[in-house]
Amino acid sequence: MLVCKKEIRFDTEGEAHIIDITSQVQEMASEAGISNGMVCVFVPGSTGAVTTIEFEPGLLKDIPDALERLFPKDMTYEHHLKWHDGNGHSHVRAAFLGASLTVPISDCKLTLGTWQQIVFIDMDARARKRTVILEFIGEGHEPA
Amino acid sequence: MLVCKKEIRFDTEGEAHIIDITSQVQEMASEAGISNGMVCVFVPGSTGAVTTIEFEPGLLKDIPDALERLFPKDMTYEHHLKWHDGNGHSHVRAAFLGASLTVPISDCKLTLGTWQQIVFIDMDARARKRTVILEFIGEGHEPA
Amino acid sequence: MLVCKKEIRFDTEGEAHIIDITSQVQEMASEAGISNGMVCVFVPGSTGAVTTIEFEPGLLKDIPDALERLFPKDMTYEHHLKWHDGNGHSHVRAAFLGASLTVPISDCKLTLGTWQQIVFIDMDARARKRTVILEFIGEGHEPA
Repeated sequence: MLVCKKEIRFDTEGEAHIIDITSQVQEMASEAGISNGMVCVFVPGSTGAVTTIEFEPGLLKDIPDALERLFPKDMTYEHHLKWHDGNGHSHVRAAFLGASLTVPISDCKLTLGTWQQIVFIDMDARARKRTVILEFIGEGHEPA
Repeated sequence: MLVCKKEIRFDTEGEAHIIDITSQVQEMASEAGISNGMVCVFVPGSTGAVTTIEFEPGLLKDIPDALERLFPKDMTYEHHLKWHDGNGHSHVRAAFLGASLTVPISDCKLTLGTWQQIVFIDMDARARKRTVILEFIGEGHEPA
Repeated sequence: MLVCKKEIRFDTEGEAHIIDITSQVQEMASEAGISNGMVCVFVPGSTGAVTTIEFEPGLLKDIPDALERLFPKDMTYEHHLKWHDGNGHSHVRAAFLGASLTVPISDCKLTLGTWQQIVFIDMDARARKRTVILEFIGEGHEPA
C-alpha cells in the first residue's frame, strides 16, 4: 500500500479568488507514484475551500457573485464584531463550501470529467500564501 | 489491501432531478469484495452533485425549491452569456453541493443511517446519461 | 495497512447547535494507532452535518444566522406537510452542508490549521443523542 502526503503552495488574492490546482494535484500524484486509489485534497485553514468546477471565465464571475448574494460581505458578522478582522463572510462561506474533496485515481490519473477542474477558492479578505495538503492512498508504482 | 474502482450508470431528467443510488453503491461494494474501509462516490462532471438525504417525496420537492431560491435558473449568468448553453445555474449549484462523498463500510455494509440515502442530483438543464465513479479502499474478502 | 472504525457519541441541543469534535477525533486516531493516512468523519443520519470552522463565539452565531437566512425554519416544507415532524429545514440544511469530511493524518496528527476545528452541526429541531463514525485508513503504529 502507498500512503503519501504532499503539499502544494500558491499565492491568492482573496475575496473569492478561484485557483485551478488540477495540474499541481496530478503532478503530485505522479511524484507520489500512485496508480490506483484516491487523493484527499484538504485545506488546512478556515477561510479557504475546495470544490470542482468547469474553470472558464464565466463561472469565475458567477461563483463569486453567488457567494456575495448568499453571504454578503457588508452584513454584520459577530465574528467581525469580536475580532475586527473584516472576514466574517470569509469564514461562513468556507464552512458552507467545505475544506475537503476526495478524488479517485485510476491508471495514475485523476478521474475528473473533461470539463471539470479542482479549484481552491480563497474566501479571505486579503491576499494570502496558501498551502493545500494532498493525501494519496492506494496502490503504488515506481515513483516518477 | 483492496483497491477497486467501479462505475454505475443511469439516466437523469435534469433540473435538480434527484436519484437514489444507495442500492447500486451497496451492490458494487459486494462486487468489489470489501469488508471494511470506505468508498469515495465521485461525480466526473461539473453539473452534477452527490450528497445524502432521506429519500422521500417531500424532500424531492424541498431540495429543488431551495436550489431555485438560492441559485435561480432565470438570473443572468456569465457562463450562459459566454457559452449560450442555458446551464449557468447548473454549474453554480453543483459547485456548492460538491462532487464527492466518502462513506465508511463496516462488515460489508455502508454505515448509513436508517433514513439516509446516497443521492445524485443532476443540476443540468436537460436529460443526461450519467456515470458515477466508486472507489473502494479497505480490507477485502472473497468477491461475491 | 490499518483500517479501523471508531465511533464518538455526544448530546446536542438541535437547531444549528455546533459541537467541536476535534479532540475526540484526535483521541480516536491515537486509539486506532494510525500514523499516516486519513480519517473519514461521517454522520449516519439526515439531519446532521460535518464541516470545519474556527470554533469561536462569533461564528457560533454567524453560521446559524446564515442557515436561517438561506433555509428559514418557518417556510413551508413539503417534508413537514407529509410527516408533520417540523424539521423540513433540518433535512434541507443537512443535505447542503454534507455528511462527510475527510482529513489527512500525518505523524499521528490531524493536519488541521491552527484556527480550524472539526465540527458537527445538529440541524434537527430538537435535542438528540448523536453518533459520528470515524473510519481511519493508513499506516499503523502500536496502538496507544
